[in-house]
Amino acid sequence: MIVVVGSVALDKVKTPFGQVDEMLGGSATHFACAASFFTKVGLVAVVGSDFPDEHIDFLTARGVDLSGLETQDGQTFRWEGYYEYDLNQAHTIDTQLNVFESFKPKLPENYKDTEFLFLANIDPDLQQAVLSQVNDDVFSVCDTMNYWISSKPGSLTDLIKKVNLCLMNDSEAREFCQTFSMLESARKLIALGPEAVILKKGEHGALLFTDATHFAAPAFPIEEIKDPTGAGDSFAGGFLGHLAKTGDLSEPNIRKAIIYGSVMASFNVEGFGAQRLVSLTNDEIESRFDLFRSITCF
Amino acid sequence: MIVVVGSVALDKVKTPFGQVDEMLGGSATHFACAASFFTKVGLVAVVGSDFPDEHIDFLTARGVDLSGLETQDGQTFRWEGYYEYDLNQAHTIDTQLNVFESFKPKLPENYKDTEFLFLANIDPDLQQAVLSQVNDDVFSVCDTMNYWISSKPGSLTDLIKKVNLCLMNDSEAREFCQTFSMLESARKLIALGPEAVILKKGEHGALLFTDATHFAAPAFPIEEIKDPTGAGDSFAGGFLGHLAKTGDLSEPNIRKAIIYGSVMASFNVEGFGAQRLVSLTNDEIESRFDLFRSITCF
Repeated sequence: MIVVVGSVALDKVKTPFGQVDEMLGGSATHFACAASFFTKVGLVAVVGSDFPDEHIDFLTARGVDLSGLETQDGQTFRWEGYYEYDLNQAHTIDTQLNVFESFKPKLPENYKDTEFLFLANIDPDLQQAVLSQVNDDVFSVCDTMNYWISSKPGSLTDLIKKVNLCLMNDSEAREFCQTFSMLESARKLIALGPEAVILKKGEHGALLFTDATHFAAPAFPIEEIKDPTGAGDSFAGGFLGHLAKTGDLSEPNIRKAIIYGSVMASFNVEGFGAQRLVSLTNDEIESRFDLFRSITCF
Repeated sequence: MIVVVGSVALDKVKTPFGQVDEMLGGSATHFACAASFFTKVGLVAVVGSDFPDEHIDFLTARGVDLSGLETQDGQTFRWEGYYEYDLNQAHTIDTQLNVFESFKPKLPENYKDTEFLFLANIDPDLQQAVLSQVNDDVFSVCDTMNYWISSKPGSLTDLIKKVNLCLMNDSEAREFCQTFSMLESARKLIALGPEAVILKKGEHGALLFTDATHFAAPAFPIEEIKDPTGAGDSFAGGFLGHLAKTGDLSEPNIRKAIIYGSVMASFNVEGFGAQRLVSLTNDEIESRFDLFRSITCF
């Protein structure tokens, strides 16, 4: 089982290829949907009383355990943003934290002995509050975004010191570590405590750094990118999903997990929100994993 | 043998890590230096009467055939530019074509039966003038830059129709093909005539596209990038150098050639101009090639 804490949101998104409103989104949602193809996921988040039943039904149908999803009086978290032709860059128009402003995550008992924990992009204080409630042997991974790097760098640093693996966008890592060099960013992050760092580069793939090794994965060449929202969380979902499914934390298996992450991210961006995952099959996942091998071998 | 036409220049370059003036540069220079580690190179270019003897001596010592290098009265081509922390982006301060303004390339007889031709970044009319002087069985590769895409799109299109392989930066391909998508850019370029397209992405590696296949190579993670000038030409030098050395134009060998190109580019950026190549050994090249395998396999 993987426990994820993060946002469950209603998104309004515009890209050069279309727009949607009140779409199911949020970091925990995208992660859970992707990871649910590999293993059981327990979700920790909060929604408002306006959250549509159909989204609950969708997550339940994907096998996501929602006993950690609170419903509070008030409005669900909402994010509004757009992308221009540089689809690597999300532009935020509006963020309404709503019920997340006063959220105090409290884990269901059966979540506390989880083997894997994903601290999706959310206030680093909430991420730490969840981390402190699970067992010490958990394999924990955190993500973040530029908003927390500039507004809560201290909390974020404390969090990174405690996790096993740190995920970040390349530009965020550069900002957080105050260096242009990817290598130096990775070293600075590893020096804080994590055993490994994965730097996500959007359409340019992802890089894994540990003390001893380095791995570079390309992104899958996509015919038609509709909406990049949630690509990073889908990546994390495929990544941790494969690790949890196999229970193998060796470096060669972490490389494979990165490819599964890239596979899930590549499907995610083919539709708005989590649309593409509705019809996705395990055969499609495996066949794209094989394609990754064919485009990288020499 | 590979024949290269392009610029031989004196560069003034400033990066966050230092600056140099009157440094040996130019697209043909960087290409020839890199390719000279693999095979014999014949250089077609023009310099002014001010061109220092030491640079001639350096190229000769690297085994570059300079019988196609004309010396004309006047000043050598000069480029002045700088890079900020985003080292992928060169900012041009000044370009003085000087002797290149009236250059009419005329190939030495022994160049005309060359098996490989590299049309380095230079006026596409000059590139075509050289292509028309070599035998029909040549394997020809062209490169270009945004300046020619906007100023001579017709000549550039005519050139691309005639070559076997087209090299371009990703942003240039997007601009030339008027699309955001790398896949669509590659398809549009291949539709013009070349059998293959390589899109160079700087620190993010390179992509190969043919009608049937796709290959993604990462860039080597560099400890200290001093000066990215000439990285693309060094890439082309390692790439065509390996193809010429092996005489094998199969797709698997083209993939290997891309890795050799990436290896040479990675060395090139470790010093200003061609400095790093002065002390470079074949063992270092082979050992970095092996490292590329270790950072990409899964």
